[in-house]
Amino acid sequence: MYKEIMENFSCVLKDGKETFVKFVSEKEMAEYLFSFPSSLIVADENASYAVPGERMNVLVLKSGEEMKNQESLFTIIRKALSISLSRSSTFISVGGGVVSDMTAFAASVYMRGAGLVLLPSTLLSMVDASLGGKSAIDFDNVKNLIGTFYPAEEVVIAPHLLKTLDDHQFFSGLGEVIKHAFLASDKTLFDFLVHEKERIISRDENTLGEMVYLSLLVKKDFIERDPEEKRGIRSALNLGHTFAHALESITNYKIPHGYAVSWGLSRAAELGVMMGITDKNLKDDIDFLLSLYGYDTSLRIRKEEIPLFLSYKEKDKKRGKNGVNFVLMRTYGDYVLTVPDESLLIKVIQE
Amino acid sequence: MYKEIMENFSCVLKDGKETFVKFVSEKEMAEYLFSFPSSLIVADENASYAVPGERMNVLVLKSGEEMKNQESLFTIIRKALSISLSRSSTFISVGGGVVSDMTAFAASVYMRGAGLVLLPSTLLSMVDASLGGKSAIDFDNVKNLIGTFYPAEEVVIAPHLLKTLDDHQFFSGLGEVIKHAFLASDKTLFDFLVHEKERIISRDENTLGEMVYLSLLVKKDFIERDPEEKRGIRSALNLGHTFAHALESITNYKIPHGYAVSWGLSRAAELGVMMGITDKNLKDDIDFLLSLYGYDTSLRIRKEEIPLFLSYKEKDKKRGKNGVNFVLMRTYGDYVLTVPDESLLIKVIQE
Repeated sequence: MYKEIMENFSCVLKDGKETFVKFVSEKEMAEYLFSFPSSLIVADENASYAVPGERMNVLVLKSGEEMKNQESLFTIIRKALSISLSRSSTFISVGGGVVSDMTAFAASVYMRGAGLVLLPSTLLSMVDASLGGKSAIDFDNVKNLIGTFYPAEEVVIAPHLLKTLDDHQFFSGLGEVIKHAFLASDKTLFDFLVHEKERIISRDENTLGEMVYLSLLVKKDFIERDPEEKRGIRSALNLGHTFAHALESITNYKIPHGYAVSWGLSRAAELGVMMGITDKNLKDDIDFLLSLYGYDTSLRIRKEEIPLFLSYKEKDKKRGKNGVNFVLMRTYGDYVLTVPDESLLIKVIQE
Repeated sequence: MYKEIMENFSCVLKDGKETFVKFVSEKEMAEYLFSFPSSLIVADENASYAVPGERMNVLVLKSGEEMKNQESLFTIIRKALSISLSRSSTFISVGGGVVSDMTAFAASVYMRGAGLVLLPSTLLSMVDASLGGKSAIDFDNVKNLIGTFYPAEEVVIAPHLLKTLDDHQFFSGLGEVIKHAFLASDKTLFDFLVHEKERIISRDENTLGEMVYLSLLVKKDFIERDPEEKRGIRSALNLGHTFAHALESITNYKIPHGYAVSWGLSRAAELGVMMGITDKNLKDDIDFLLSLYGYDTSLRIRKEEIPLFLSYKEKDKKRGKNGVNFVLMRTYGDYVLTVPDESLLIKVIQE
């Protein structure tokens, strides 16, 4: 089914750089991976099964957000140096958002910038980390504090990889897809998620490919309207994320990103309604879709942890003149950036 | 004298970004430094005298190439985080090339890119590190292995700072000025250096300002003709540097950069003449100018250290398809990039 709908496309990013997004079958992927004259493949251990054979130019890293640090970065750089990569060589990541963000960062700083290809292996990294040119590592417990804008030359989507994801990882990525459904200016993705639920849950490869495609189109639209992230448009992709990042920080990244985002979505919707910004119907759609897919958003923060939550919130990168901006939806595709009163904020997060 | 000649100018770099170069007096510099609403001033200890008063937002780092590492980088990032810098804040370096390269790198990766101003305090950093958009740290004994292209918004030249430089540092910077004299397509800078020697040696502020200005104009010309460093034009600024970097590596950076460059200049001239590329008159001019300013280029590498030298040479970033490219001059402003025979290379460096 999706073959008729899905198309390779390119996305224009900062400084006019382009990322080409292409969809490949299992066979095409294997051929592609070893088609580079000089490359380093960095795979996380969950995705390493997808990298055939023992090769000099493969580095396998442990999975997990706690690995997204300077030590892993230096491991990648040392490996690149040990196989004499030059600045015209290509770094290829095969894995989730952690390894792709780190590999992208390593590529962006190795000899001041080498080639970069991302082959995301998880739903989260397919719909989020892979497109947009953002690379990063965490530092001193601040997520993505150190990073660069460095668009991949190619993002390669291989939907067959999603079939073997565990549920935990799958639903983590679905949180971002749901976010995109509300950022979209029409209900195409929302309706798709509602009507195709069975095929999505049963991991039908074609349906998942189509879902990734529709989700990436929403992201592409936001990026291209604001490639420099200066107009407050691209910032909307941060919907739910200011909540999510602070939650992840106070729980030492034990909560998966997509779950944290779904929590953040529901908190932003509640805050938005409370402030008279968010349309009640939109909040209902958000609650409906999250509950349709079984997300539990009832988590609240204990009173004694609120100050820590607020201090992490303050370190968020979306800081404007008056404080950290939250993205709050009015309705589909329509949002505002605003600094909420701390008292209201506490109301929607505190136990 | 220089007031009539020197002018503020702007230089167009990669991706169309511009760096504005301005010349300031001692008084103007002090006012400028504290005119930013949110900034971190990173000074090396040699230059910290130029940063007035005790301030929360000043970080003083030890001087020296051995400090140009990941630990210093993280010290800068932690300090920025501790004073709640945002991505719209400005990192200001006051110091030599080491601190300016590191501060630039920190600014380029802090929250994926904050503001950057460079105020070079040494001759070397005024004529070399400050203009061009290159940031870096050394890693695993490879100079500038990790870095970014990240042009400063402003480079502020305060010639009065050169009056108190020790001779060692002064002559280190003069090596790059001399390099620029031969890369220039006319002999303006060469003649200036020959005729103004007395005023230069006696550190006349105006004369030094003019020398920096003339030197930067040469660099600006090369950068603007090849901002992406893809046409082999900007690579010419690497004249003498492939020799110099390898020498610095095998001596653990104990030889000052400018001395290493003057050695590299003379080695490149000898190699160029040997290969029938370099005009004998140009080689004579190079030898004359280096000796006029008292540079000793007689150093040769012991036979047992040649393999190590060659292995560091191989790690040079100027690697092309056939090996590491050397810049060899034909005559003023006219050069070739070429991979010399190893046997010839050894001839000009071995004891």
